[in-house]
Amino acid sequence: MYVSETKIRVRYAETDQMSFVYYGNYATYFEVARVEALRNLGVTYKDLEDSGYLMPVIEYKIKFLKPVLYDEELFIKTTIRDMPKARIRFEYECFNPKDELTNTAETTLVFLRKETRKPCPVPSVIRKTIEDFFQD
Amino acid sequence: MYVSETKIRVRYAETDQMSFVYYGNYATYFEVARVEALRNLGVTYKDLEDSGYLMPVIEYKIKFLKPVLYDEELFIKTTIRDMPKARIRFEYECFNPKDELTNTAETTLVFLRKETRKPCPVPSVIRKTIEDFFQD
Amino acid sequence: MYVSETKIRVRYAETDQMSFVYYGNYATYFEVARVEALRNLGVTYKDLEDSGYLMPVIEYKIKFLKPVLYDEELFIKTTIRDMPKARIRFEYECFNPKDELTNTAETTLVFLRKETRKPCPVPSVIRKTIEDFFQD
Amino acid sequence: MYVSETKIRVRYAETDQMSFVYYGNYATYFEVARVEALRNLGVTYKDLEDSGYLMPVIEYKIKFLKPVLYDEELFIKTTIRDMPKARIRFEYECFNPKDELTNTAETTLVFLRKETRKPCPVPSVIRKTIEDFFQD
Repeated sequence: MYVSETKIRVRYAETDQMSFVYYGNYATYFEVARVEALRNLGVTYKDLEDSGYLMPVIEYKIKFLKPVLYDEELFIKTTIRDMPKARIRFEYECFNPKDELTNTAETTLVFLRKETRKPCPVPSVIRKTIEDFFQD
Repeated sequence: MYVSETKIRVRYAETDQMSFVYYGNYATYFEVARVEALRNLGVTYKDLEDSGYLMPVIEYKIKFLKPVLYDEELFIKTTIRDMPKARIRFEYECFNPKDELTNTAETTLVFLRKETRKPCPVPSVIRKTIEDFFQD
Repeated sequence: MYVSETKIRVRYAETDQMSFVYYGNYATYFEVARVEALRNLGVTYKDLEDSGYLMPVIEYKIKFLKPVLYDEELFIKTTIRDMPKARIRFEYECFNPKDELTNTAETTLVFLRKETRKPCPVPSVIRKTIEDFFQD
Repeated sequence: MYVSETKIRVRYAETDQMSFVYYGNYATYFEVARVEALRNLGVTYKDLEDSGYLMPVIEYKIKFLKPVLYDEELFIKTTIRDMPKARIRFEYECFNPKDELTNTAETTLVFLRKETRKPCPVPSVIRKTIEDFFQD
């Protein structure tokens, strides 16, 4: 299991007239969270793309427990629970500054070859850096 | 069961450098789809808010089957399968111009009183217009 | 001079907690407005890209006169005042459903060759369809 | 004159299929930049709203000099050149990691009373913290 933590401050642009963060904007927060999770491993998503891979999301689920407000600094805990193979799954727990759990989510991504847009196994640069976290 | 159909054209702003619609932007398409579904019933979400209700999303799930591309006119089929009570659930099927199913999703929303931000039953204006679709 | 008209309905996602459309979101409305202005001429921006051109914005200005509200159907009048050469300039006037002018804006775009990302003159497909509007 | 500096990393969501940051997304970066400029003075925009003010943008201009790319950490220099009275003007210079100037922009905002949505002079909490920077 690999766990990473990220902080993100809510922008005004991300609120809606309900004075909550718009429900569609969390997807971007989780993008940041998983990119930072990889960066903490020494892998940047940018380098992955530059070396010929794409990682589109194929499934996304979120449950909203409490609204998130403008200017709150969110704390997102990102977990990779299973060793990635053809897919990589990230789970997210998002906390507000009062340490209340505001939502939980998960995304599943696949690996594609950029040129062919065909699926491929987890790139070795990810596999090598992450496999230590999944030893028995 | 109540079914409604909406067309939405993909904006350049909604693509990302993968040349697909960014995975977070579908939430906005579904917002448009369910607002139009209600409008087709004679209920505008704006009027609902003006009459003292809010309808935040409490759960959202999406499965991505095929990428959606810039300038494609999407056809979204929105279904309310169950008579709304404390919650209202919308299911979405999104088709591209080749009539291929590109993704399926669902959102569950609750009804809140705007003043108190407390849950309440389905507003009568929705209940009355929709209940004819759920007769045995 | 070439003038085109487009209607766009404000989405909830585009509002902010001031209950106005967020100031950054008009750029997307103007993208839609100029793409529709070209489409009305028989040119799609998608085809332009597919035939090897890009049209990045190099300058954008907007003055906000009145706030725009959720669910309003905006009427945008797009004007190309000068025959495009190395650049193309679009001017926008945005009206709300009460026919009040809510903002005025302009964008200047250049033409790039997609492969080289180098500037080039206006593509002939645009020049040919538009030059009739600029006869003396 | 008051100058503040902010760093912002480009998110994937903010790119478009040209592989540049979408031209409309800079507005959000400048929102972050001016909010951080105020925070560095000890004033949060959130507190301003909570104490009864709104600060809508009434004018925005941007010139794009170089494209900005995914994952770049931008350095934004925000300048308040004139003592704010009925209006406050922020100027922005945005640099990429190679220290190249990628765009310049400015926004003018007014102060409104939240309740009445009527203009008012610069709130004293801003005036007091900022006036030291505008002594002769």
